[in-house]
Amino acid sequence: MATKKVEVIDASEVARWDATSDVIVVGLGCAGAAAAIEAARAGAEVLAVERASAGGGTSSMSGGVIYLGGGTPLQKACGFEDSPEEMFKYLMAACGPRPDEDKIRVYCEHSVEHYHWLLDQDVPFKPVFYPHYSGEPPTDDGLVFSGNEQAHPFCEIARPAPRGHVPQIPGQAGGLLMKKLLASVERHGVTIRSDSRTDGLVLAADGSVVGVRVRTFGESATLRARRGVILAAGGFINNDAMLDLYAPLLKACKFRVGADGDDGSGIRLGMAAGGAAINMHMGSISLPIIPPKKLQKGILVNRQGQRFINEDAYYGRLGEYALYHQGGQAYLVLDNETFERPAIEREIVAVGETVAEVERELGLPEGSLQQTVDLYNRHAENGCDPVFGKAAEWITPLVHPPFAALDCTTSGSLYAAFTLGGLRTGIDGEVLTADGDRVPGLYAAGRTSASLAAPGYASGISIGDGTFFGRRAGRAAAGSGALS
Amino acid sequence: MATKKVEVIDASEVARWDATSDVIVVGLGCAGAAAAIEAARAGAEVLAVERASAGGGTSSMSGGVIYLGGGTPLQKACGFEDSPEEMFKYLMAACGPRPDEDKIRVYCEHSVEHYHWLLDQDVPFKPVFYPHYSGEPPTDDGLVFSGNEQAHPFCEIARPAPRGHVPQIPGQAGGLLMKKLLASVERHGVTIRSDSRTDGLVLAADGSVVGVRVRTFGESATLRARRGVILAAGGFINNDAMLDLYAPLLKACKFRVGADGDDGSGIRLGMAAGGAAINMHMGSISLPIIPPKKLQKGILVNRQGQRFINEDAYYGRLGEYALYHQGGQAYLVLDNETFERPAIEREIVAVGETVAEVERELGLPEGSLQQTVDLYNRHAENGCDPVFGKAAEWITPLVHPPFAALDCTTSGSLYAAFTLGGLRTGIDGEVLTADGDRVPGLYAAGRTSASLAAPGYASGISIGDGTFFGRRAGRAAAGSGALS
Repeated sequence: MATKKVEVIDASEVARWDATSDVIVVGLGCAGAAAAIEAARAGAEVLAVERASAGGGTSSMSGGVIYLGGGTPLQKACGFEDSPEEMFKYLMAACGPRPDEDKIRVYCEHSVEHYHWLLDQDVPFKPVFYPHYSGEPPTDDGLVFSGNEQAHPFCEIARPAPRGHVPQIPGQAGGLLMKKLLASVERHGVTIRSDSRTDGLVLAADGSVVGVRVRTFGESATLRARRGVILAAGGFINNDAMLDLYAPLLKACKFRVGADGDDGSGIRLGMAAGGAAINMHMGSISLPIIPPKKLQKGILVNRQGQRFINEDAYYGRLGEYALYHQGGQAYLVLDNETFERPAIEREIVAVGETVAEVERELGLPEGSLQQTVDLYNRHAENGCDPVFGKAAEWITPLVHPPFAALDCTTSGSLYAAFTLGGLRTGIDGEVLTADGDRVPGLYAAGRTSASLAAPGYASGISIGDGTFFGRRAGRAAAGSGALS
Repeated sequence: MATKKVEVIDASEVARWDATSDVIVVGLGCAGAAAAIEAARAGAEVLAVERASAGGGTSSMSGGVIYLGGGTPLQKACGFEDSPEEMFKYLMAACGPRPDEDKIRVYCEHSVEHYHWLLDQDVPFKPVFYPHYSGEPPTDDGLVFSGNEQAHPFCEIARPAPRGHVPQIPGQAGGLLMKKLLASVERHGVTIRSDSRTDGLVLAADGSVVGVRVRTFGESATLRARRGVILAAGGFINNDAMLDLYAPLLKACKFRVGADGDDGSGIRLGMAAGGAAINMHMGSISLPIIPPKKLQKGILVNRQGQRFINEDAYYGRLGEYALYHQGGQAYLVLDNETFERPAIEREIVAVGETVAEVERELGLPEGSLQQTVDLYNRHAENGCDPVFGKAAEWITPLVHPPFAALDCTTSGSLYAAFTLGGLRTGIDGEVLTADGDRVPGLYAAGRTSASLAAPGYASGISIGDGTFFGRRAGRAAAGSGALS
């Protein structure tokens, strides 16, 4: 896909405005929909521009998990205790080397309220906990563990609680979520201009953003925003040139989680207007070694035959460690007792009656895998893993032949990736420069903005922060004064 | 140090120009000096703006190593064979997951010419090879290995040749280098405006950069550039806010390699004018476990008691692996035969008659270090290291008690860091947007631009690419037509 360029346009050069609204929202995935709804609720006239023929974006293709907590009615109904403090502790530990404390705080404090807002948009949640594994449930159950809450070291930092809230429909729930949000967008009287790609931001002489330029079926139009423009146009996983420039490692991942629209145009528009883009090298990288969960009893090893992580960590953490720290070279080693056919196809790349045979077949240094298994087994006899801290439940000595290794390399197996970098924003979605100043009139949300969780992704954070901060951006834009 | 903000200024708002020149160079480190000299040689009137009282910048505080090759007279005089092709192969392998092939190609093809240019600026090189270790020689010898050329896997990819060219003076040679370059700047009739901090870029209505605003002793002045502005104002290792935003891991490093001016102002100016900043999370991170070189015979282990790299890799690679992949947690384990007092102070954090004792004292998982040493020793008996590929010369079984561990953690030992991220530029230093378009009239060089080597730093790349691409920027700016 060739990259379409974007640019800023001087307002003095706009001959006429083809339409005018208080707030213009660019992109109608979950973040844009939430922004449009809230801007309208706050009394603004809202125009939403969507490049596809209908809204939905990547959100509608997703699992629909929403990371919420702090004691939501759903958590309570399922018998789980949670608090904003525990959620805050978890996210501060999980969200990378420099977590955005301000955003995490407001996100946790208002998470229960956000759950109620979703109910108000008719998003249904079935009060049943799905216990069988973390991530996206195949059932219509409403609550699931969707991160590293139960795994070392996080389980020692914050009391684990499941926070993946899943709209009630079997399997992928993103479609249902977006159907409900888009219906609410319509109910709130938002004007939708579809099939319209935004390729320019219109700037007033003082640098404030006062409109957009869109292309609709080959025709350009300029649309004026009296109060603000909200960029919610997704990330850049489908823009190879941007991946080369900012996040080349993600190109190794076979599966790119994103709609065509995830070409970074929103981020580039914001940068062209002076916004800083941060966390641009970061991605959410899933390496799903489960289900079945039993496979966590195996050990993940690198090209040196060494373990590198507790295998019961969330698949987003497994992928991050395997790609960023092991060059995408990993194998899951199992014995006859722990082996089970993986739900997501994964080739058996070595089998042997002894670990030494598997080691040889994988071409690992002589003795390396053998000693790794020896040490693992020695501690497994005592039900512990002092090296990486895997939970006792998933520890068992690997001693029953035959032994096998499953391919967990980027080249030979499924890694699913999307980008987490984007425009720097404040807690109301306001776009900021590298100096921390506002770009007046400009907001961003969803993957067009830098994520709450980068790295340290948990399923549901993207839709969670997209809708949550999208709403705040919508309210802020609606409430701001008229622009120059 | 509080961050000073920068901004873009509309040319129509400039009441008067306090001075005018063809080319304005911002910053007089090695990149700015090279740019100024070449712009002047190309016939342009040049004004150089320097925030300190005199030029020199970080370059003058550095080791002064310049990464050159392809068969320079110095390499030949020292008896080493090299070619642009071998140099190209090395840099393509060493310069990260997505090396800038265009820049590396032109850098290698013209490296011999660049050496002669340095001679023309009276920079002296003594035709003697310093063999005792890689990096910066304590003598006045002129040639040294300054990267991973001799280490696995690079020695198998390209024929090793020393490429660290060091100006002739004992110890740190950056001062001499800058003295010579600044003398040449003066000889070429460049006007120098010192004590002047550049805090604004002046943009014409079409977005082209036509001047700068500077602060000199509390007074603002606007300076017009007829043909172009070259930003050569260093990196951002001394800007905590930018480190938090872009490269938080670098903050763990005790020693920051940079002048006060390395506050990212050049990068922020370029971003404000529409330039894209790339590689912003990357740094050069030195973990000098040598000299003496004998210490490479030890093994570097992490908190899991595992090795993670061939210990004979260049100290820039050791630091990168230890910080980025091991969280800055590393120890150098030695036996009585391999131990020697390190030249750079490094605390002994564990001693024992057995490896098990050292393991316990370090608080490593039981058995972990013991098995790592066992495997290492088993292969060391055969003089090989199939796990990480250390060269035979540095391999010996670690079997002579007592055993000791030297502190190589970020918290307890010296890591030296500077930033490698900066403005995206083409091969003539022209600043580019995220879309790959030029910002007319704007150039960048040195650490204000994204580095040739990121990650995969070799000593001498920074001064090498700074002077090389600085020169090209100077010529390009001088040769461009008058701006609007």
